[in-house]
Amino acid sequence: MDKIAKPYVIGLDLGGTNSVFGIVDARGEIKGSTAIKTQAYPDVKDYVQAGVEAMQPIIDVAGGIDKIKGMGIGAPNGNYYTGTIENAANLLWKGSVPLARMFEDKLGVPVALTNDANAAAVGEMTYGVARGMKDFIMITLGTGVGSGIVVNGQLVYGSDGFAGELGHLTIDRTENARLCGCGRKGCLEAYCSATGVARTARELLEKSDRPSLLREINPKDLTSLDVSIAAGKGDEIAKEIYEYTGKLLGDACANFAIFSSPEAFVFFGGLTKAGDLLMKPLQRAYDENILSSFKGHAKLLISGLKGSEAAVLGASALGWEI
Amino acid sequence: MDKIAKPYVIGLDLGGTNSVFGIVDARGEIKGSTAIKTQAYPDVKDYVQAGVEAMQPIIDVAGGIDKIKGMGIGAPNGNYYTGTIENAANLLWKGSVPLARMFEDKLGVPVALTNDANAAAVGEMTYGVARGMKDFIMITLGTGVGSGIVVNGQLVYGSDGFAGELGHLTIDRTENARLCGCGRKGCLEAYCSATGVARTARELLEKSDRPSLLREINPKDLTSLDVSIAAGKGDEIAKEIYEYTGKLLGDACANFAIFSSPEAFVFFGGLTKAGDLLMKPLQRAYDENILSSFKGHAKLLISGLKGSEAAVLGASALGWEI
Repeated sequence: MDKIAKPYVIGLDLGGTNSVFGIVDARGEIKGSTAIKTQAYPDVKDYVQAGVEAMQPIIDVAGGIDKIKGMGIGAPNGNYYTGTIENAANLLWKGSVPLARMFEDKLGVPVALTNDANAAAVGEMTYGVARGMKDFIMITLGTGVGSGIVVNGQLVYGSDGFAGELGHLTIDRTENARLCGCGRKGCLEAYCSATGVARTARELLEKSDRPSLLREINPKDLTSLDVSIAAGKGDEIAKEIYEYTGKLLGDACANFAIFSSPEAFVFFGGLTKAGDLLMKPLQRAYDENILSSFKGHAKLLISGLKGSEAAVLGASALGWEI
Repeated sequence: MDKIAKPYVIGLDLGGTNSVFGIVDARGEIKGSTAIKTQAYPDVKDYVQAGVEAMQPIIDVAGGIDKIKGMGIGAPNGNYYTGTIENAANLLWKGSVPLARMFEDKLGVPVALTNDANAAAVGEMTYGVARGMKDFIMITLGTGVGSGIVVNGQLVYGSDGFAGELGHLTIDRTENARLCGCGRKGCLEAYCSATGVARTARELLEKSDRPSLLREINPKDLTSLDVSIAAGKGDEIAKEIYEYTGKLLGDACANFAIFSSPEAFVFFGGLTKAGDLLMKPLQRAYDENILSSFKGHAKLLISGLKGSEAAVLGASALGWEI
């Protein structure tokens, strides 16, 4: 009924650089989208004003605000319970920003907000490969490693709204463990994020003299994209980097499974473009390390949402749930 | 209303040796209890029959079966979804045993079943220190390390009913990691269970010639109880064993917190009798290893239920939820 009277939701993918708004229907089709520069608005009030103005044309095309059921926002350090962004390191707005309420006041529709990885999980459950699943874990492999955990069909927000930081599982307790951006040592994120993969590349290149296309790049400038391109050309060291990354991820996922015994893990982000180069060692390590009673149970899947649209779709999916 | 008309529930703590039945009121008082030997009944039908007969006198005292709202069972490898015990290594009954349905048929009241650690979590939420909490993690420190995870006020059973095996978090990935009973290496359980503590004792005693009361015991016969007694007498090595165990547990809990951001961890079992000897290093390691955004958030608590009654109370608490 509601999806007929109000057939659309708005999704906002709020990133450190760009903010992308989209109007989305119940099947996950983006009917219109627009964007503003996040950093252009040091005052969050101006940001909200600019966002609403930028959205107006696509809202009009959708038939006006009366056709919009709600809005969902995926933002760094987003807290679902309070609708606030809390001390996000890569945004200009400091402290606690009540962004959900601010958009609600301007638009007159209910607005929900959560972090990017949780939004991705809701998106996957609403429009993607996790449709119909009640227990799964979303792992986002980007600049960091994020996660969104679904248990009993509900996102796990925990007691404070910040649950699901699986990128900070300690996977190396030895002295040589890598330092993570969080200040702790040995976190999964320090190995399996884009920056972690670049670091693995530098380490592997240093260890030997074996030839590699990656040697053509200044080690300091190496990125995970370079590794992906080299692997695509059959570079052996690049393939080893994926082998190593996949193994660590698979082992970590085996450790996540003991928590919520999910039906699936869904991987999202640039690294997954490597396909089997990443997923085969990941699956192998998962199978080797999973507790025997869980063996063969969870599927390891790559996100079903188009990369460029996934973040907006994920955010928008929150809009149906309000 | 229901708690007036049917003021009691039955709890069954089904262990490898003993099966303890109790009739419990809404405040968590055990109004009557009885027990049978689990191993005396190779056929589960005889076991159910014997259990029902043993319970009859205490049911009569409670005013008859009409006063009973339901029954809860805590059992090894218990599956909440199916009400079955699945291939429990320490029981005579093999395969899948539909124990909930069997008691339901005999008693005519609804019966729920789950594993011991999950039952303990429900017990703590109903009668213990987790009353009113919606997000907490129960850690049981016994022969093994078990766990029951509560998210949004609900037990996490996962996609198959077997979620919450936190004792099998890999905490040591080095070559020297201890072998766990599950066949994998480096599990928390191999260090922080009663048997893990005894092993730590043997290792520490071997490493040096320092005097210790524990040297009076044949290393093969050393138990965690011996360590507890020696620590109570001020034995330095025994205290170090708790220091080591608490540190590993605190570090592991910091890793659990990133999953569900709980309001509290509740510890239960023999090891917790050591009190501060265990809890101080545990708290210290937790504070040192917790992700900064979660710092100071979760309380680390010892179970509020009396040890001898806790298992029956935990199981009985399931009876209110049916």
